[in-house]
Amino acid sequence: MNDQIKIFSPATVANVACGFDVLGFCLDKIGDGMTIKKVKEPGIRITKIHGCELPYEPEKNVAGVSALAMLEALKPGCGFEIEMHKGIKPGSGIGSSAASAAGSVFGMNELLGRPLNKTELTKFAMKGEALASQSEHADNLAPAIFGGFTLVRNVNPLDIVRVPTPHDLYATILFPQIEVKTAEARAILPKQVPLKKAIQQWANVGSLVHALHTSDYNLLRRSLKDVIIEPYRKQLIPEYDRIKTLAREAGALGCSISGSGPSVFALCKGKHAAERVRERFETVYAGSDIDFQTLVSSINTEGIRIL
Amino acid sequence: MNDQIKIFSPATVANVACGFDVLGFCLDKIGDGMTIKKVKEPGIRITKIHGCELPYEPEKNVAGVSALAMLEALKPGCGFEIEMHKGIKPGSGIGSSAASAAGSVFGMNELLGRPLNKTELTKFAMKGEALASQSEHADNLAPAIFGGFTLVRNVNPLDIVRVPTPHDLYATILFPQIEVKTAEARAILPKQVPLKKAIQQWANVGSLVHALHTSDYNLLRRSLKDVIIEPYRKQLIPEYDRIKTLAREAGALGCSISGSGPSVFALCKGKHAAERVRERFETVYAGSDIDFQTLVSSINTEGIRIL
Repeated sequence: MNDQIKIFSPATVANVACGFDVLGFCLDKIGDGMTIKKVKEPGIRITKIHGCELPYEPEKNVAGVSALAMLEALKPGCGFEIEMHKGIKPGSGIGSSAASAAGSVFGMNELLGRPLNKTELTKFAMKGEALASQSEHADNLAPAIFGGFTLVRNVNPLDIVRVPTPHDLYATILFPQIEVKTAEARAILPKQVPLKKAIQQWANVGSLVHALHTSDYNLLRRSLKDVIIEPYRKQLIPEYDRIKTLAREAGALGCSISGSGPSVFALCKGKHAAERVRERFETVYAGSDIDFQTLVSSINTEGIRIL
Repeated sequence: MNDQIKIFSPATVANVACGFDVLGFCLDKIGDGMTIKKVKEPGIRITKIHGCELPYEPEKNVAGVSALAMLEALKPGCGFEIEMHKGIKPGSGIGSSAASAAGSVFGMNELLGRPLNKTELTKFAMKGEALASQSEHADNLAPAIFGGFTLVRNVNPLDIVRVPTPHDLYATILFPQIEVKTAEARAILPKQVPLKKAIQQWANVGSLVHALHTSDYNLLRRSLKDVIIEPYRKQLIPEYDRIKTLAREAGALGCSISGSGPSVFALCKGKHAAERVRERFETVYAGSDIDFQTLVSSINTEGIRIL
């Protein structure tokens, strides 16, 4: 068995319009690179972080926290060194902390001969994710680890369902480089919601899952709606209504906030449509002082992969 | 083309635990018989009602109201006579009014050479259903007309999704013969619900749809939960908590209120388990002064059928 592994830990989109806190999907074209090394010396060491400034102390780093939790549970009689190449900017809303938290435990699990299944890996990764968001969530972790579309039915006990991905589905991401803190995006939400709206939301979650199973793109279009969360959070994203209009005009199946923002995603039938949406997204902040990035990605049905 | 048709219009279970107002499934072993006759004389006449006391005036009878709405829209230059054999007691919570409202328009559509598709039929049936419940719903109508499990994604415009039925699924029904008025069962519900509970509910709706697609009975078991509506409505049904305990002990996948009650349904893997649940249900009101009926039914994947 090799003592070192290089992995690609992908970016992910949580919520997917109607599925707040439960649905997510995995991207292909953006993610972190990580090198995990099994070493004799016990403990976790983060040896290098490229691409952005993050703490090297394992207990202050999401990749370190999940790694420590797994190490403590498995007691494998060895240690691990982690080198991180952050391709996902923290705070972008496409699962930066999830990629780090999931990547370290995925790599360790491979080096140890896969003692853990994917749900167990997710549990340890949640310890890292909790460092970033102050609560244990799996809506970005599950798609990163399982790939494709995932539904986190329950967090404790953890219950993850992997939903099929229609083969011609592409995502376009618009990432305005403004700061939206997850905690702030959570605080803005009401504690109570109208039952009528909640019914609409669960109807759409149900039909979205059905549409993914049946590759029904028209039903995807009708289901990708968020009547609960978006009305509150859209105020955190400049030009949000215009972004949605542009996405719709360019033929997107749906467009909503990725995770707690500020990134916005659109889902499209076919790469061509996704590129058309991206062209429109390029115009949103042109001439403003908001920096932004855009990208088109197929849905990554594999999740984290060994390089 | 024949000028007379006899149909079986089945009972249905709406809500299906987590899917309040959107999910439903169709029963096989209980329903109404209806004879629809195409006649020269214009208009709708209800010629006979067997099995219970209901108004004969078409505009006061749910089967008549839906028939009148369809007649007015299609203007077929003829009339229809309807004979009803009510096998489903009104107010039982297993779609008595839906069976009547759907049956008349289904039969008329057949006699006219099927000018309407099932969604269009449902729209006319909703006019009849509205007479019974004071609002237009399709959560019982859709399973009666489409068969199997249905999800009503939206009412206006009407958007119905037919979800697959695992082949080994059976339902047990316990019908305590007490009165629960739909209007009262609606009035008892809160206008606002906790966001946290709503999230649990839509997670379960999503995973229930997934479980139906994949015949995952264990996931069905985990998903058949209602954290929003049941806590309010269960007080309308005597011994409700005990009913649920008995169902669980007997191996049911889930047990919840059928529609707005008073009927309770359990879903089971296999007929044997469903019969075991029925035996337990027989004990609930034994020795009390509450009359009751129980039945076991396979899931009717066809819906209304011609006899």
